[in-house]
Amino acid sequence: MNQTERRAARYRFSDRMRNVPESFLSELFRVSADPAIISFAGGLPSTGYIDAPGIADAAREVFDEYGRTALQYSTTDGHLPLRDFIARRYRSRLGIPATPDEIQIVNGSQQCLDLAAKILVNPGDTIAMERPGYLGAIEAFSLYEPSFCAVPLTASGVDVTAFAEAMERKRPAFFYGIPNSQNPSGISYTEPVRRAVARILEDTDTLFYEDDAFGELFFDGKPRPPVKKYAPDRVIMSGSFSKIVAPGMRIGWIYAPQEILAEFNVAKQAADLHSNFLCQMILARYLERHDLDAHVAPIARAYGENCRLMCDLLDDRFPPAMTHTTPQGGMFLMATLPPGVAGMKVFREGIRQGVAVLPGTPFFVDGGGEETIRLNFSATAPDEMLEGMARLARVIGGLS
Amino acid sequence: MNQTERRAARYRFSDRMRNVPESFLSELFRVSADPAIISFAGGLPSTGYIDAPGIADAAREVFDEYGRTALQYSTTDGHLPLRDFIARRYRSRLGIPATPDEIQIVNGSQQCLDLAAKILVNPGDTIAMERPGYLGAIEAFSLYEPSFCAVPLTASGVDVTAFAEAMERKRPAFFYGIPNSQNPSGISYTEPVRRAVARILEDTDTLFYEDDAFGELFFDGKPRPPVKKYAPDRVIMSGSFSKIVAPGMRIGWIYAPQEILAEFNVAKQAADLHSNFLCQMILARYLERHDLDAHVAPIARAYGENCRLMCDLLDDRFPPAMTHTTPQGGMFLMATLPPGVAGMKVFREGIRQGVAVLPGTPFFVDGGGEETIRLNFSATAPDEMLEGMARLARVIGGLS
Repeated sequence: MNQTERRAARYRFSDRMRNVPESFLSELFRVSADPAIISFAGGLPSTGYIDAPGIADAAREVFDEYGRTALQYSTTDGHLPLRDFIARRYRSRLGIPATPDEIQIVNGSQQCLDLAAKILVNPGDTIAMERPGYLGAIEAFSLYEPSFCAVPLTASGVDVTAFAEAMERKRPAFFYGIPNSQNPSGISYTEPVRRAVARILEDTDTLFYEDDAFGELFFDGKPRPPVKKYAPDRVIMSGSFSKIVAPGMRIGWIYAPQEILAEFNVAKQAADLHSNFLCQMILARYLERHDLDAHVAPIARAYGENCRLMCDLLDDRFPPAMTHTTPQGGMFLMATLPPGVAGMKVFREGIRQGVAVLPGTPFFVDGGGEETIRLNFSATAPDEMLEGMARLARVIGGLS
Repeated sequence: MNQTERRAARYRFSDRMRNVPESFLSELFRVSADPAIISFAGGLPSTGYIDAPGIADAAREVFDEYGRTALQYSTTDGHLPLRDFIARRYRSRLGIPATPDEIQIVNGSQQCLDLAAKILVNPGDTIAMERPGYLGAIEAFSLYEPSFCAVPLTASGVDVTAFAEAMERKRPAFFYGIPNSQNPSGISYTEPVRRAVARILEDTDTLFYEDDAFGELFFDGKPRPPVKKYAPDRVIMSGSFSKIVAPGMRIGWIYAPQEILAEFNVAKQAADLHSNFLCQMILARYLERHDLDAHVAPIARAYGENCRLMCDLLDDRFPPAMTHTTPQGGMFLMATLPPGVAGMKVFREGIRQGVAVLPGTPFFVDGGGEETIRLNFSATAPDEMLEGMARLARVIGGLS
């Protein structure tokens, strides 16, 4: 290579960077910041339910009691009282025998996506996931150059027959799924589907990556049994305080068999030594001082009311050819547009008319979903939702 | 594969996990926590210089002024006032024309190691680095399955001839170096070496990854010009608040040409969306309210005194066949043991006799370094250092 060629090839990037799908997330954050646009596009929990004074008090106590210790380096696995809280909550709330030794603290559950692919996936290995599947996961996994296998979601969860076939034929490194109020569809697996999936896993060497970002947000307040309960050795769970306490602290966790957690620990240490220790201490203290159930209940109820309002508006004020999912929890639903109306057009025209939605296509890792959109119902107050949905009805009416 | 075989192969991990060298860091953290052991093994900044009350005040102001906003999701690139502070400091302190658009906030500079390999290295690509080289970097890079090329360090910095040869023959994805008070050796590049390296880079398509964790910690308080100054388009710099404000917040940064920073941003988003926003705001406020130069000066002076004491003790109370580097800054020096005394034996016997050092071997990515140890001088008060070095002299004397 001569100097001219070298200068022309200014920078060389790794092949994996070419594998990343075009991201909507940055555009989304921009849209979320424009006050003229009512956004159903983001994934923000309602700011109104973040208990800033409670967290400020916890911070004051941590500084008073621990001072410099809270600001020094710490261990890779994470703050023990926080891991202990998480394990105890699994035991009391879901009846699964978690211990702190099975918990690794990470920077929000997004980091678990990255680390899981890192420790489990060689280039070309299969990652199976729901269709449609979570965009943030597709982005994180793509950097590890997997071959994706998309397994259809039905109204009762992942299609069990297709799941069994995928396990048998593709022998994936893992299946990534969100059994509780899935992102983007809002669908929750029924209990028979959870049990069936667990039974199928027992005969494989594939892991189930059970992303449980929304398990605390069922509108009826009742927990659902995780797949982990039925196949403990074959399931990695991830959880997050982002949707129930505060996302800005970036604190989530991995709950996995110790043999797997040891590998996560190696990868976590290489990635960033440990998660922010100060915020781990603040959060642990906050959780000691507050009843998390009492904190979460009104959030789940409010999201339930928002969701019902959004569903009613979709039923009453939109073209009758449109359909939508009817979530039991979480923050999202998915709508199927009238035939011939593309989600991408609704996205672009919506921005022009002051309402943001997310087109469905990026959630379909093998293509398709052109006539779907994802709608978030957690971040808008009812009056905003009425106005935003009126704008959206005009946009879709104009494109039909 | 039948079911019995599947159960035997309980879990499958990616090939890259087999590539991770045995880590001493976990053992180190354990040793650091044992009060009976005086540790020269770790890399902790002195806890005594962490301004916990100042940071607590900054936290209070952030909660009072921003409340919930400081706890919500934020942008991937990082808090603008913090990026602006970093860019201004580069301009005023080092005379390099940095802008906030060239800065990406990460979770301590360790995360930059992971992201740099992610965006720049295909399996089998060459990463060149100093010999000896930073262990944390070797661990992070190893997960990307590179071929390492170790370029010798001399007392005046990287060996320029060997550097030029490595660039020509191996065409590495990047060269990783620490020109200021290197870890583990404590060596700083002279200015002619910096200039020579920069000139060589100009004719390549290789990047220089300039890890500047210690640039603020020269004992004489004077900044040294970074390689970035002489080859701005070919250098990625990383920096960290861990050694100068507080490591427990896990806040560092990448400073790179925008074309490269865009790729870092994609990888950062996939890795964990963004760094802890609350601590970014607290730190930005802290830096507004305090004079960082005034804060850092006594730290650098104290480390300088510690270093001189350690060097004097090595000269006066250890076998004359021992040699050591004489750092101008930072937190570490490297000692070469008497012939036939292995660093690993000093490590194991030291633990038994209440003093911890780090054997040099893990810093030598291509083997060697058996008769070296790394000593940290930042984390021990003078009386502890006297006692610890007395124990170490006994250990080494016993093994000689």
